[in-house]
Amino acid sequence: MATILDVARAAGVSASSVSNFLNDRLSKMTPATRERIEAAIGQLNYRPSQVALQLKTGKTATIGLLVPAVANPFFGAIAMAIQRAAQARGYQVILCNTFRDPQREREFAADLMALGVRGIITGSSLLNPEHLSELASRGLTVVAFEGDAAAAAPGIHVVSVDNVMVTTLAVDHLVALGHRRITYVTGPAQTAARVARLKGFRAATERHGLGDEARIHEISLPQNQYGDDMIAELGVDAALALAKTSPRPTALIAMNDLLAIGLAAGLREHGIVIPDDIAMVGIDDLFLARLMNPPMTSLRQPLSAMAEAAVDCLVADGTEAAPATSLIFAPELIVRQSTARTAG
Amino acid sequence: MATILDVARAAGVSASSVSNFLNDRLSKMTPATRERIEAAIGQLNYRPSQVALQLKTGKTATIGLLVPAVANPFFGAIAMAIQRAAQARGYQVILCNTFRDPQREREFAADLMALGVRGIITGSSLLNPEHLSELASRGLTVVAFEGDAAAAAPGIHVVSVDNVMVTTLAVDHLVALGHRRITYVTGPAQTAARVARLKGFRAATERHGLGDEARIHEISLPQNQYGDDMIAELGVDAALALAKTSPRPTALIAMNDLLAIGLAAGLREHGIVIPDDIAMVGIDDLFLARLMNPPMTSLRQPLSAMAEAAVDCLVADGTEAAPATSLIFAPELIVRQSTARTAG
Repeated sequence: MATILDVARAAGVSASSVSNFLNDRLSKMTPATRERIEAAIGQLNYRPSQVALQLKTGKTATIGLLVPAVANPFFGAIAMAIQRAAQARGYQVILCNTFRDPQREREFAADLMALGVRGIITGSSLLNPEHLSELASRGLTVVAFEGDAAAAAPGIHVVSVDNVMVTTLAVDHLVALGHRRITYVTGPAQTAARVARLKGFRAATERHGLGDEARIHEISLPQNQYGDDMIAELGVDAALALAKTSPRPTALIAMNDLLAIGLAAGLREHGIVIPDDIAMVGIDDLFLARLMNPPMTSLRQPLSAMAEAAVDCLVADGTEAAPATSLIFAPELIVRQSTARTAG
Repeated sequence: MATILDVARAAGVSASSVSNFLNDRLSKMTPATRERIEAAIGQLNYRPSQVALQLKTGKTATIGLLVPAVANPFFGAIAMAIQRAAQARGYQVILCNTFRDPQREREFAADLMALGVRGIITGSSLLNPEHLSELASRGLTVVAFEGDAAAAAPGIHVVSVDNVMVTTLAVDHLVALGHRRITYVTGPAQTAARVARLKGFRAATERHGLGDEARIHEISLPQNQYGDDMIAELGVDAALALAKTSPRPTALIAMNDLLAIGLAAGLREHGIVIPDDIAMVGIDDLFLARLMNPPMTSLRQPLSAMAEAAVDCLVADGTEAAPATSLIFAPELIVRQSTARTAG
């Protein structure tokens, strides 16, 4: 494959002359130079790269995807679902890890914009999505994936599972199995998704009249640390505290499957058996949930449909006046062997 | 944050005039225009994006990382390790899923080059890394992560675990526990890493004189499909065939942890207990290995050190004459409860 440098060399001109030629900046170019460049391009069968061409038009068939940390298989699954949806629509995806840092998101987004990208999907679900408005005001179309419907605004679409319903269904399922001492294990409520899940847990346990038996176990993390690349390890540690609680909960709901996997491993180390001693419900229905021993009950997010909707928001958004969309998907309870009727 | 369009609007000029100004293409610009642009930049506190500036110099502090599929948590772990190493050296990482497709790798690499990226790390470990030579010949510095030392060439560095040693250590461990009926479960030998692991298994079992008792169970996949986003599911399916084998192997080595997780779940569905009925060794030592029930023996890759070495290859490669490096790291056997002395 010939490069712009090969063309420049063959034509005996500078690379920037070739670039000027390709970009129709011809006013300062002699006809002889133009001919040499044309001949070299023909001879070398030079094809400017897709992106170079798109840079020229200022619009590239590339979507930027900002995820907190692909170390969490859930974000890996989101990335794959979005890539599949994008490819089916002729788009490619460039992925960046942002650790939910607004400054980093801003920088990546600015860089992607400089490359001609006009649409991004972000999974950071930050409570204060101010930086998204800023990006939208610069002409970027933004999809907040896993965010709060309230964040929808001009240029900002929201595509998310109904996070209140997620924990509502989890509580309803456990109460139906006779559980009352239910503890919700969560990281600090620093993201919109976490806040919504907490809200769902509180409302559902109140509706069932669980009173003090419903507990919240918050994993402590430093301010602005979300633990995305160490969730499972945090679960192992939290299991110790939970094992010591008296009276011990008969059921746990974990804020996501990865935390549940860590909790399950930690509980096992303390001789606590799932589901006999304690029932466990995860959230997300990662592919790992059904492979666990015992296979884990979880709340499934319809990731494929969500990814398609997210990409459609960006692909459809050709017009300045495209209305802000807020698409909220219902989760599905997948019952497996980690939840059983309470013995207590 | 002001954009180039804001500056253009404030100065009453076109965006391309601002771009010409920023890129010192001033010959056709009147002094009055220059002053208006300067004033607008000052007034709006406009700061051209990092990438835009780097595009200008043709070199950006960005590394491209091509992975088969982040849906596999192992590639997620690699991505995180490389991002940490890159950040510590002032580089950012752009990630692309390539599904080990040489054409896609070529396109992504060309696009990244067009953006000024001069170094990429690829985890595709293809048997025929011809397209890498092609990229290197275009001036890209390439690190083959998880590849074959033989692939090292001018412009192509190799950073990999010793994949022959990986399976050698696994076999030695199982033989030391009394196992002889050992089956290696692998995908088609279509990658350099898989070929090397198979070679290590064959040599070690031969050295121990296992003869026909050593078996290879190859998971069938269509040509040029690597199963990266469905490895665990393939393991579940393979477990059925293995459960039916007579005499059944007393130990399995899986080509990676994700396959082992699937195998373990599948065996459990058929009432086969690990390690009592069958011992299991994984490869990679994903964070999930120690969280499994029972925790799984695995071969650890020193990912942090490997990631740092890979990034160093790119960062150090300022000179045209930088020699091709081949850095092969030793794996470490991590013994957990999935392997025990054979009963048979």
